[in-house]
Parts: sequence; structure tokens; C-alpha cells
Amino acid sequence: MSHGNAIRDAIEIKKNGDELSAGLIREVVEGYTSGAVPDYQMSALLMAIFIRGMRYEETLALTEAMVDSGARYSFPECVDKHSTGGVGDKISLTSLPVAAALGAPVAKLSGRGLGTTGGTIDKLESIPGFSCAMTRERFERQVETVGLAILEAGDLAPADKAIYALRDATHTVDSLPLIGSSIVSKKVATGAGHLLYDVKSGSGAFMNTPDEARNLANLLVRLSRSLGVDSSALITDMDEPLGSAVGNALEVRESVRLLRGEAAPADLSEMARVVAARLLELKGVPDPEAAAGRAISSGAAYEKLEEFVAAQGGDAKALANLRVSHDVREVTAPRAGYVARFGALGIGRAALLLGAGREKKGDEIDYGAGVEVLAKTGDEVEEGQPVARLYGTRHAGRVPALVLEALEVTPAPVERPPVILERVS
Amino acid sequence: MSHGNAIRDAIEIKKNGDELSAGLIREVVEGYTSGAVPDYQMSALLMAIFIRGMRYEETLALTEAMVDSGARYSFPECVDKHSTGGVGDKISLTSLPVAAALGAPVAKLSGRGLGTTGGTIDKLESIPGFSCAMTRERFERQVETVGLAILEAGDLAPADKAIYALRDATHTVDSLPLIGSSIVSKKVATGAGHLLYDVKSGSGAFMNTPDEARNLANLLVRLSRSLGVDSSALITDMDEPLGSAVGNALEVRESVRLLRGEAAPADLSEMARVVAARLLELKGVPDPEAAAGRAISSGAAYEKLEEFVAAQGGDAKALANLRVSHDVREVTAPRAGYVARFGALGIGRAALLLGAGREKKGDEIDYGAGVEVLAKTGDEVEEGQPVARLYGTRHAGRVPALVLEALEVTPAPVERPPVILERVS
Repeated sequence: MSHGNAIRDAIEIKKNGDELSAGLIREVVEGYTSGAVPDYQMSALLMAIFIRGMRYEETLALTEAMVDSGARYSFPECVDKHSTGGVGDKISLTSLPVAAALGAPVAKLSGRGLGTTGGTIDKLESIPGFSCAMTRERFERQVETVGLAILEAGDLAPADKAIYALRDATHTVDSLPLIGSSIVSKKVATGAGHLLYDVKSGSGAFMNTPDEARNLANLLVRLSRSLGVDSSALITDMDEPLGSAVGNALEVRESVRLLRGEAAPADLSEMARVVAARLLELKGVPDPEAAAGRAISSGAAYEKLEEFVAAQGGDAKALANLRVSHDVREVTAPRAGYVARFGALGIGRAALLLGAGREKKGDEIDYGAGVEVLAKTGDEVEEGQPVARLYGTRHAGRVPALVLEALEVTPAPVERPPVILERVS
Repeated sequence: MSHGNAIRDAIEIKKNGDELSAGLIREVVEGYTSGAVPDYQMSALLMAIFIRGMRYEETLALTEAMVDSGARYSFPECVDKHSTGGVGDKISLTSLPVAAALGAPVAKLSGRGLGTTGGTIDKLESIPGFSCAMTRERFERQVETVGLAILEAGDLAPADKAIYALRDATHTVDSLPLIGSSIVSKKVATGAGHLLYDVKSGSGAFMNTPDEARNLANLLVRLSRSLGVDSSALITDMDEPLGSAVGNALEVRESVRLLRGEAAPADLSEMARVVAARLLELKGVPDPEAAAGRAISSGAAYEKLEEFVAAQGGDAKALANLRVSHDVREVTAPRAGYVARFGALGIGRAALLLGAGREKKGDEIDYGAGVEVLAKTGDEVEEGQPVARLYGTRHAGRVPALVLEALEVTPAPVERPPVILERVS
């Protein structure tokens, strides 16, 4: 069948709500990736999928076809994690060294951040000299010798990249089967044998409710297992930023403090340990929670981080004293009371404006810029008490109001919310 | 609002099944026609409309926006008819001269035929010298002096033309609101004050069932009236070809015979009279059926056809003896019995292959080619009796089998079906 016929058949079938065969889905994905299927036909199909939905078998076929559209790596012994995107999410920076220190190797293939969600690569690049560009051979060698390596990979699931751009332009992003196949196709292509999905739920996340997050988590795990990857998922809170720091060097600094056993926000500390333990569990490590705790308190995890940073050209000695912006201003509480909300979306937006992220592809990042939240939901604050520190000079006039908008202070005490909401399979 | 925001808003609203405002629809249509809205966004919106549907007010707004995208003519005194497309449909050729002869002027603006549906302009061009290309001034003068003129108009509702091409490429053609707005936008732009819609129903028509045809007819009439055009509709049969002749010169020849009071197929004769009468009724002519009959028997309608043909450069004397292809073969009945079906689609396809129509834009027509069916549903036939005559040389090997495939002969008598199925308002 020609690709022209395939896309026409697929549109006809899906517009009526019927089921696409795996073969037809593969033809369409190949046709779109090669340019034989034009955008205007693909977008009609995506809208039909958006409205009519897809059965599991269709979603699996789409995922598999997107995996096969690009390079496939193979690291069956390695663990990896994927977060659906949050503000101040430094769980890769903290949990992966813990896992690697305990003999669970990590071969992470990653992309760049966009919008309010920072990318792990961008964060690490705030370390002087650090680079994620290397040959595949050197990457594989580092996985073997250090047990932890991160490579910037641009060749994973190019079909997903093209389809995602079209979905973004045609308002067909928020479809469960399309989200699920997009995430899993990229992760399966990285070839890790054991995967943990961290599905964020809340006002600052893609999935606003635990129900939506649970549906996505179940789909991610099921798709991954169907494609031969051992996996599980956590549903975690993203109503407020994770930890205090939002912004590249600020987040590395906070991660370093956690791994060095210095003071660290409770939510970040809990979550880093739980994620590390789940990764170790996937590898069959006994009593993984205790092992993760010991790796931090013994300094083994921090040593692993230093070893990893040095292996990728970074200045490991600079880690403990990372440069952040000297332009610092404080935002203070407008009234006394209890923090009911310090919204992740607003804080993420503020950090983005200050220069911590990219509004569009190619924007230049100010690695030292960002926000530190000094109050978390449930904390009691006095009027005039600093609640956030702003780092950086861009858009300095607009940012304080944005941060204050994200803050809600109420007279009545507020319970501190849990950070781990649910564990999926 | 920019056109970019308009299309994004429209997609977001319609994908959730909500209602588009008239202003938003206009922004989108203007944006698409000007090129500001890309195909891939428009096709996503069209698919959302296809699946979610549109309320009447939305359909009306879309129709109006498409009318306003191009030239608007104004002939408030004139009558016109529109057929949704059939095989052997020569009702314009026969009913319009009748109406014009009785003082109901016709200013017809028409396009070219494509596929199995022949265009009236193509049929008339089989008359030596006849042309539908003229200035607007000459056209208007001819409407006044002759009372009947046909102009090839390429500037009607260009938004509809662009959207239709995209619908064709994205399988979003068969949507009632999109079909209705497409038809009515072009007809309203022609400016006729009184419109009769001939909605075909049956296996050879776009609408396969009378229910579908009735829904479309009601929508066409309602939209037209909302846009200030007096209108009504008929639902007519298109299971078999209308009359005997299918193909340009063959159809003109059959029409001439009817208007000259010579032998003519009963279904064609009945329908030409009924359509003429409905057009006259729209103009308030009393006892229109009798008037239409008299116009034919007196020769007045044929004289009007001659006058019209001559006014547009055609050889009126050639009318009575029009040249058709000399390459004629007969297809005979494979067995004795009654004709249960002589399918319009198969006959139309046969005529198209013989050269009577265009498979794609720009194809050259053989004006003398086509098919004459010699047996209609309900007729009794002997084995070996000729049931069709094939004119023309193209694809001569494949066509007889196609014609025989369209023919179904049964042992039991079959009732002759009615040609006019229903009258709508």
C-alpha cells in the first residue's frame, strides 16, 4: 500500500471511530516521517484520534512505529527514570547518583528543556566545563566505568518529534494515547532495561488531577512492558515547586547540598530517596530504602556525582560552591498567616522570565538565574517575611508581581500536602 | 484578533464539541482564504467539525463567510436550479428554456464537471461554436434580452473552493453542515432571487438514502432563505441514470428531442416538466404545470433554446442534428427477464472512461462519447436484446463489462420506480 492510500484509509477509519490496524499505523508514521504524507492529512488524522480515542493495541502500535523511526540504543542492565515535567524537579540530579552508587547503572539519553519545565541537561551545563555531547562509544564506556552517563540524543523517535510539533500547532496535545505513545517511544528508544515513570499531578503539571495522572501512569507502564521494558510509576505532587530552587545552577546547588547530607527541603529529600529506592527495587536490590539512605549519609552518592561530573568534563571541585546570579531580590509576604498555595506554574513562569529557561527553541539561558521559594505550603509566615529570592536581571520589573500572584496566604492553618501521592504497580 | 489566534481558538472550541461564534468563523475563513491560516490547522478544524458537527447558526455563519470571500452577483428577478449531481442529468438543459420561455428569466453561473457528474457547461460546449465565456456586461444584457444566459464563473466563493479541496484530501467531504454550506455559498453568490434545489437520492448520488437527502434539502432551503433567497427543493431518484443519454452531445440531443416534442424517456420528460413548474411557481406563475406543458408542445421552449444557443455563439441549426461519435457498439442482455437495476454509478463510470468526462481537472473531453441506456428499471428484456449503446473509442475493451456489471435482470416483474421522491417545502 502506498503512504498516500494509508493516510486516507486511516483518516476514513478513525473519523468513524473504528480501529486502526498496526500495519496501517506503521505505514502512516513512516509516510509522515519521510515527508510522503503532508501535514494537512496528518493533522486531520490526529484530530480524529484526539476526539475518537485509540484502543490500547492502536496506542502500542503507534508507540512501536515511533520507536522504530529513529536510533535505538540498548542498555538492558541500566535503570532510568522519566518525569512528565515539573517545576524545580531535581530528582534526576539526586536519585540517579544514589542508584549508580549502589550498582544500578544509568545510561540516560536526554533532550533540552522548553517552557517552564527545565531539562536535566541544561541544569548540568551550569557546571563549568560539563558537556553532554560525546560519541556513542565514549558514552557506553562511561556507563561501564562510572555507572552513570548522560548523553544529549537528538536521534530518538524523530517521528514523535515531528508529530508533537504538529499536535502543538493543532491543539491535539492533551490526548492520553498521544501523550503516552510520545513519552514511551522516546524512553524505549533509549534502551534502558528498567524504567521508573514519575507522573506529576497538580496545577503545575500536565495532568491536573490524580485520576488523569493515574490513567497516564498505567498506560506508560503497560506500554513499556509490552515493549519489553521492566517498569513502574509514581504519581507525585506538582501543585508547588519541588524543593526550594527553580533554575539551573540553583537546582544543582540544592541537589549537591542534599547529596552532601546538608540541609535540604523535606519534600525533595523524601522524593529523591523514594525514587532511588524504586529504581533499586527494579534492579532487585534488597531493602532499597535503607540502602538509598546509607548511600547519601556515607557520601557515596555525592562521590558518584563528582565522578560523573568529572567524566563529562565538568569541574567537580566547583560543585560545592556553584556560581549563581549576584543580582538577588527578595519577595516578602504581604500578610501574616499560613501558606495555602505557592503555585508551581507561577514560580516556573517567574524563573523562565528571569532567564532560567527557554520560551522558544534557541533562546539563551542565564544559568545563574531563577527563584528560590523560602516558604512551602503549610508554613506559617509573618507579614514582611521573605518568601522568595529572585536571581537574575531579565524582566526584573514584572517578576515580583508574578511571584506574589502565585502565593496564597490564609488565616487558618494549612496541612502540608504529601509529595508522593500514589505508587502504580 | 489575529487569524492565528482565531484558528487556534476555533480548534480548541470545536474539538470539545462547543459552538463557534459567527465572528470567529469569519476570521478563520478569511484567514484561510488569505493564506494566513495554514492547511494543517484548517484540516484539524474541519475534522473536528466533521466529527462534532455544527449547529445551524454555525453553518449559516460559515456559508455567509464563504459567500463574502468572492464576487457577488445580483439577479433578484431570476430563477435558477441546482442539482447535487447525477448521471444523465439534463434537467437544466430542458427545464430552464421552458421557464425562460414563460417569462422566468435565468442567469446561470456555472462551473465545470468533474468525475461521473457532467457539468452543464461541458454539455452545451458540444454544440459547435457555443461558449460560456463572456463579459459580465454581455451576460447581464443577454439575461435581459433572451431571458436565459449561462456564464462560466470562476470567482464564486473562492473560500469554498479552497476548503473543498482540503476536505477532499482529508476525507471530510461527507459532513452535512460542510456540504450544505458549500452548495449554498456558491448559489447565493450567483445572486438568483429564486432557487430550486434538486437533491438526488440513491446509489448513484451523494446522498444514498431519502432520509439523508431530506436532511440536506431542508438545510439547503433553510440556509438560502436565511440569506434572503426564496427557495424550495425536490428529492429525486438517482439509482439509475436520468433518461437514456449519458455524455455531452448525447444529452443535448436527448434534450432537443424532448423540447421538440419528439420521443423522450418518461422519467426525463416528467422531471423536466416538474422542475420547470416549480421554478415558475417560485415566480408566482399560475397553473405552472399546464404552462410548462404548453411551452413544450407549442415549440416555444425549443425556440428559446435556439435563441439562447445562438446568443452564446452556438450553431442553433446544428442542434437538431448534433454530431455524436460514429464508433458505436451495443451491449446486450445476458438473459431474459426484468431490469431490476441499471446502476447510475456504473453507467456514469462507463461514460467517463469512454471520454465523456474528466477524471481529473484539465482532462480533455470527447464530446461525442457516452452511453445510451436502452432499458430502464422495470422494463422487460429478451436475451440478446440491446440494453445499451456505447459511443466512443477510449477504453473500449473495459467498458462493456462495466455496463453489464451495472445491469441486474431478474425473472420476476419489477415495478418502475418513481423519479420524483419528495417535495420539500
